[in-house]
Amino acid sequence: MSDKAKIVFLGTSASTPTKNRGLNSVVIRFEGEWLLFDIPEGTQRQMMKSKVSYLKINHVFISHFHADHILGLSGLLATMNIHGRDWPITIYGPKGIEEKVDSMLKIAMLTPGFDVKTVEVKKGIILKEEKFSITATPLNHEIECFGYIFKEKDKEGEFNRQKAIKLGVPIGPLFSDLQKGKKVKVDGKTINPEDVLDVSKAKPGRKISLIFDTLPSKNYYKAIENSDILIHESSFLDQMKERAKETMHSTALQAGEVAKETNAKKLILFHLSARHKENEKFEHEARTAFPNVEVAKDLMEIEL
Amino acid sequence: MSDKAKIVFLGTSASTPTKNRGLNSVVIRFEGEWLLFDIPEGTQRQMMKSKVSYLKINHVFISHFHADHILGLSGLLATMNIHGRDWPITIYGPKGIEEKVDSMLKIAMLTPGFDVKTVEVKKGIILKEEKFSITATPLNHEIECFGYIFKEKDKEGEFNRQKAIKLGVPIGPLFSDLQKGKKVKVDGKTINPEDVLDVSKAKPGRKISLIFDTLPSKNYYKAIENSDILIHESSFLDQMKERAKETMHSTALQAGEVAKETNAKKLILFHLSARHKENEKFEHEARTAFPNVEVAKDLMEIEL
Repeated sequence: MSDKAKIVFLGTSASTPTKNRGLNSVVIRFEGEWLLFDIPEGTQRQMMKSKVSYLKINHVFISHFHADHILGLSGLLATMNIHGRDWPITIYGPKGIEEKVDSMLKIAMLTPGFDVKTVEVKKGIILKEEKFSITATPLNHEIECFGYIFKEKDKEGEFNRQKAIKLGVPIGPLFSDLQKGKKVKVDGKTINPEDVLDVSKAKPGRKISLIFDTLPSKNYYKAIENSDILIHESSFLDQMKERAKETMHSTALQAGEVAKETNAKKLILFHLSARHKENEKFEHEARTAFPNVEVAKDLMEIEL
Repeated sequence: MSDKAKIVFLGTSASTPTKNRGLNSVVIRFEGEWLLFDIPEGTQRQMMKSKVSYLKINHVFISHFHADHILGLSGLLATMNIHGRDWPITIYGPKGIEEKVDSMLKIAMLTPGFDVKTVEVKKGIILKEEKFSITATPLNHEIECFGYIFKEKDKEGEFNRQKAIKLGVPIGPLFSDLQKGKKVKVDGKTINPEDVLDVSKAKPGRKISLIFDTLPSKNYYKAIENSDILIHESSFLDQMKERAKETMHSTALQAGEVAKETNAKKLILFHLSARHKENEKFEHEARTAFPNVEVAKDLMEIEL
């Protein structure tokens, strides 16, 4: 399978699956990691239908504990166990995640041969890896619910050979050390990686924001501003905005407004109510507020 | 949808689903009732893909508590609730069923607007309706596990108009009472339904036996003898019979032998290990012991 960074929409339906759509769940594949966001009933089978390898998932981020967001966890862990997984997996979720995971393992009568770690999510950075980080931002739903922001590390510049040669660094392994961000010593003089950087090649890392079940709220605007891709729930159309408000969900129009207000480059709508069959209506409605919009389909992939 | 009696195989895979097969689950539709046998992850979506109306399920029979047989319950109940169900459902299962169902409701944060009854299954008749009954028979698995036998009520004969007229019953509503099995009085004389039966038209009711996870065992032979349709688990092929024994499962050959020994009319193999992709091998192997065999496929229907 391709090693390219991408987003895979495993399912796109809200509340219940439909004949043609699985429940809402997303994978981001980046630099060898496969990050799973929400894990409703049927997630493992959607993975089997996609090119996502379920054994490679090491991090699962749960937005909130409503049934249509979590019920696939026991099944996925059971299947990993059957296939002999022996390395840890970490499940991130709201307050109570440890107890929730314990109960789900108990119901499945499952004692996995691997460590199932849990992390109780709070606002802020919850995972920091060498090349990316994940930040949680509280949303505005019936129960505690988080959106998650994937952020590729900013590139501060590119290694400049000429600068290194000018500073007297001999061509060879020290070049590689500087490229990896290490200091080197040449004739007793310390040379820092910053000294040989061409900052004109600096490039901010990409930002992908996933906003799950929420009534639109300025609470999360700051966290998601300038997203390269904003993936926003859109349970309803504007004609059902009262229902959306009652159930603390967003309409397609509201998602478009959030994209505009937060200066997103692209908006993708997901988590569409099972009652709706026409994606075009969602797209057209959101477009009245924000031009660059797409509606997620099951198993759709977006290369990054 | 057709009102005809039938069996629907929602899924046929053991342990884990596959890209092409859902986890093992069966519906019997008979005289207005839809009976569901086992409810693994993905059952509700398989129903949506079949012609089974999930709202019409009033009885769910669970063979045992391994993960691949029960994890779809919370999701199905959640979806029933979303669609406004307000009449009871009964869940039958081994010892501990009430606690299991309670935990599953708790995990899904679900307080359904309908009564979820539970029945702890013991050997013998567990449901008796006007036109059929369900009997449980203990199987031989790692944990307590039951097979279920559907039995249509025997027809003791047909109402004979001529006999009734001879006995002086006036043509009219009393005929209908006798047909319904009620006694009637004519000129002070009691006439019993048996008195007006043409016993030459007697017909035994059909018998469908569902044998879930088990090492073959004579324990359940008596309960399933003379089945019109024996639906038997067949997790493995004979080449893996040691693995079958270790995990307390059956091979296709063993299922064929059970069908032969218990005088079944037809054998259907289900619950096939996810590792196997060629149904023909299962069919050929079982056929060496018993000729009338078929391998279940997802969404296959058999009219009764």
